[in-house]
Amino acid sequence: MEALLETRTVPVRGKSYLGVLGGMGPLAGASFAYRLAQLTPARTDQEHIPVLLRNDPRIPDRSASRLRGGMDPLPAMIEGMQFLARSGVDCIAIPCNTAHLWFDALQGEVAVPVLHIVESVIQDLRRQGIHEGKIGVMGTPATLELNLYQHYLLRAGYEPLVPTAAEIEQCCVRSIAAVKANLVEAAFAPAAEGIAALERRGAVAVVLGCTELPLAVPHHRRREFGLVLTDSIDALALAVLEHFAWAKEPEVALA
Amino acid sequence: MEALLETRTVPVRGKSYLGVLGGMGPLAGASFAYRLAQLTPARTDQEHIPVLLRNDPRIPDRSASRLRGGMDPLPAMIEGMQFLARSGVDCIAIPCNTAHLWFDALQGEVAVPVLHIVESVIQDLRRQGIHEGKIGVMGTPATLELNLYQHYLLRAGYEPLVPTAAEIEQCCVRSIAAVKANLVEAAFAPAAEGIAALERRGAVAVVLGCTELPLAVPHHRRREFGLVLTDSIDALALAVLEHFAWAKEPEVALA
Repeated sequence: MEALLETRTVPVRGKSYLGVLGGMGPLAGASFAYRLAQLTPARTDQEHIPVLLRNDPRIPDRSASRLRGGMDPLPAMIEGMQFLARSGVDCIAIPCNTAHLWFDALQGEVAVPVLHIVESVIQDLRRQGIHEGKIGVMGTPATLELNLYQHYLLRAGYEPLVPTAAEIEQCCVRSIAAVKANLVEAAFAPAAEGIAALERRGAVAVVLGCTELPLAVPHHRRREFGLVLTDSIDALALAVLEHFAWAKEPEVALA
Repeated sequence: MEALLETRTVPVRGKSYLGVLGGMGPLAGASFAYRLAQLTPARTDQEHIPVLLRNDPRIPDRSASRLRGGMDPLPAMIEGMQFLARSGVDCIAIPCNTAHLWFDALQGEVAVPVLHIVESVIQDLRRQGIHEGKIGVMGTPATLELNLYQHYLLRAGYEPLVPTAAEIEQCCVRSIAAVKANLVEAAFAPAAEGIAALERRGAVAVVLGCTELPLAVPHHRRREFGLVLTDSIDALALAVLEHFAWAKEPEVALA
């Protein structure tokens, strides 16, 4: 390992300060920062990408706003985006799928690029060798009912497969709510049930399309499933590494 | 659970926006934000403490500066503290033990309170029922050689027990370096060896006194040890919850 340390070339990354609009939920925001550090092929602190995580959970509920006329989260999200931009970040990631229903409005508020979580997931499907077929999507009712993933998957040549209304309630909503209440272990069973239902209907891969779901289905239990899982937290972290040209390093260690 | 949800009282927390000077290392900074969210007795996103994590790993190495005349990290740390204060946080936590060698200078730069990680660990020893006896301390060479913990432990009535110079190299330094290089699994064995050596010399508890060490010794493996472990990441997170009067809630679930 010493030899490797001495000979490897650290790429000159130029400006690379990542802003993260987190807090939706806070565990997902922190988990994103954690996975980004873990997936970075760095040997010392100083080689990691600097990150500013605004993990402010006071942003009103995204699903409630879109589906039940709840308080609009857009002003609070815009405030967060503007704060990050003012703080000098070079790129912004938003580890919340549902928030991407407002993507165009959020990108419009800042001059720096904002990575799109759904595009990151599609990149990750390709990275994992999935180029066609039925892709199951799990997520919040708003993400699913407002076709966030379906649109992008169709355009990329996949066939989107969405849980039934009953499965959205029984599997997705229950699992996400358990993570948000810090009951991470209780979140596994409903998520697993949802994945199995999508597999029975022919999915070749399932998107964990809400940033709470990767916490419900931890890495060490993913081999229990007979199909590819793509994790929107990891996919977004890998997209950040590619954006800052870090992912060309050979040692990217997927934990 | 519905009934519980309806009847519990959410304390009025007033101003509670936490700044985190992270990046030392970045995995420890992110892990601190993650554990803070996990240890918060919240049922929804909106009940969590808002956090601004500046996870900037470009701060020069703290140990190298203090022990080997390396670049001074203080200007970069001060820049971070001033940024957090300007951003409107009400309190600052620094999830890096070695950085606390500069605690007075850092507190002096900001008007908001800065929680002290060593005081948080001593609170945690008491929380875990340890009120006297030999307390083993694992940490970086700088933390140990410059007596960061020893001073506070003595003042609190404990007897500090420090690894030998050989153990610091073989156990602490190797384990910390492995975590910083993302080799978290390889970090366990040297850390476990260090804990065992301190136990043989009569320690009733061991402080994981570097924020990389709790990652080396994950929660599910802590029962393998016959003594109390206190984890400087969790201790600091619990101190934050107490500071914002969150910890009085009955449901604090230690994962």
